[in-house]
Amino acid sequence: MQIIDGKKISDEIRTELKAKAEELKVKGVHPGLATILVGEDPASHVYVNSKIKACEALGIKSFHHKLPETAGETELIDLIEKLNQDKSVSGILLQLPLPRKLNADRCVNAISPDKDVDGLTVNSLGKLFSLKKWGEIESAKLLVPCTPLGVIYLLKKYGIEIAGKHAVVLGRSNLVGKPLSILLMSNDATVTMAHSQTKNIPEIARQADILVAAIGKSRFVKKEFIKPGATVIDVGMNRDRDGLCGDVDFKDAAGIAGFMTPVPGGVGPMTITMLMHNTILAGLKQSPAKNTEAIRILS
Amino acid sequence: MQIIDGKKISDEIRTELKAKAEELKVKGVHPGLATILVGEDPASHVYVNSKIKACEALGIKSFHHKLPETAGETELIDLIEKLNQDKSVSGILLQLPLPRKLNADRCVNAISPDKDVDGLTVNSLGKLFSLKKWGEIESAKLLVPCTPLGVIYLLKKYGIEIAGKHAVVLGRSNLVGKPLSILLMSNDATVTMAHSQTKNIPEIARQADILVAAIGKSRFVKKEFIKPGATVIDVGMNRDRDGLCGDVDFKDAAGIAGFMTPVPGGVGPMTITMLMHNTILAGLKQSPAKNTEAIRILS
Repeated sequence: MQIIDGKKISDEIRTELKAKAEELKVKGVHPGLATILVGEDPASHVYVNSKIKACEALGIKSFHHKLPETAGETELIDLIEKLNQDKSVSGILLQLPLPRKLNADRCVNAISPDKDVDGLTVNSLGKLFSLKKWGEIESAKLLVPCTPLGVIYLLKKYGIEIAGKHAVVLGRSNLVGKPLSILLMSNDATVTMAHSQTKNIPEIARQADILVAAIGKSRFVKKEFIKPGATVIDVGMNRDRDGLCGDVDFKDAAGIAGFMTPVPGGVGPMTITMLMHNTILAGLKQSPAKNTEAIRILS
Repeated sequence: MQIIDGKKISDEIRTELKAKAEELKVKGVHPGLATILVGEDPASHVYVNSKIKACEALGIKSFHHKLPETAGETELIDLIEKLNQDKSVSGILLQLPLPRKLNADRCVNAISPDKDVDGLTVNSLGKLFSLKKWGEIESAKLLVPCTPLGVIYLLKKYGIEIAGKHAVVLGRSNLVGKPLSILLMSNDATVTMAHSQTKNIPEIARQADILVAAIGKSRFVKKEFIKPGATVIDVGMNRDRDGLCGDVDFKDAAGIAGFMTPVPGGVGPMTITMLMHNTILAGLKQSPAKNTEAIRILS
């Protein structure tokens, strides 16, 4: 079994992104990321800080905005609209989850589609859903949700073929399961979307050449879910008494999978890297600089 | 094998819709459909006429707009924007395909999301993709593409269970395959999306409790694609030397399927019926009349 080293790939991509950001500065393109944190959730604090640090490391400007737990929807949406207009901001990251009294859908959809670096607005998801082929998604410079995009890059970097393969995605969230299913299909995989109401999950999962676990259940995927030699992508990030673990029972699965992402160090590091990718992409899309249309962010 | 009689269900639903349209008039809600036909395509003429006639039969106003083959994109988009503002128009139907020199994506997306009775704008598809459950789609009064919506109603009217079943959808178009996959999943089916790049289609199809053929290949689905007793939905509408036929080899499949839609007389009649449904729904959504939020279009 070969480990898919998300940390290594992520570092390589960040090096590439850093060079790209420098190259773009010379052309007059200056990507910048605005981060918004509402309230005091400790995990959210940690995530936002990691995103700000990632910007610094890549030479991308970041602008942090902190609102109190008590902030109202109008206050938040006013801030988002101000950032939508701000030319130094190419991407807006609204850290989720929001305090319960705020309507997350309405707040997320206040973000201009051009600056939607999380790819979670109705407009971004609609475009993703409308485009048929990976090539179209790339050439439209579409802002795609970061975790699913990271999974696609992991597969591509490891030379794991997607076209004509059967991918089974466990989990149907808007953040991961659904957009990843569409991305896998746009790469010509046959895709089965399975979820909490699926019967015979092991039998369905065992058909997969590429099995994605994104259901948020600690060590749910066992060896009997896995076809010998299959690629297993673990999007889970759970905490149990033994510490951090994924949705896959790593030890159990290791003897049968062909390729597998560990937790931590698999999909996780890719998410922020793809946020950086999307921030640069958004900067490029919004740039008034000429002759930037054909520039690709990643080789 | 039991035939799923789309003509009969469609007639029943139209009777219900007619009563609903009359009931709504009393409440001050007056749905109206604007149809736009560009050019001289004979099949498109026939389709648009059927839609106008369906409106008449239900007591719904229709407004037909015909543009010459030579019409430019600006002219068409100007018309759409005028109709977006027109309060007597609740739905706008832009008959596809458009002449090639027009960018269909841009023209379709000029339609206001509130009046998008075909459910094909990026906004409508994004909302469909974002909502998780059939109940949310219904209560949001979402405008869903007509053919997929018709398939769901056929299944429901025949009491064919969707939740927990395995649906296999052959074809990944924006018009049918992709939205139908999402609708089936929102009804808690496990869904496999298969297409031209899928290997072993018969083997994949044979897993289906509900098999949908939407690939545009005459009589492609044979008995070896079908699990005994499965429900087979044929969205195809092809013409070969023997006349009109679907994507399913009806005679071959009849001996093994449990339920099956014929062609013609299966899914076909449902499409225009669902357009009528969406027109009334759009009228209801746009109505300034009070206390209409809880009204359901179909029982």
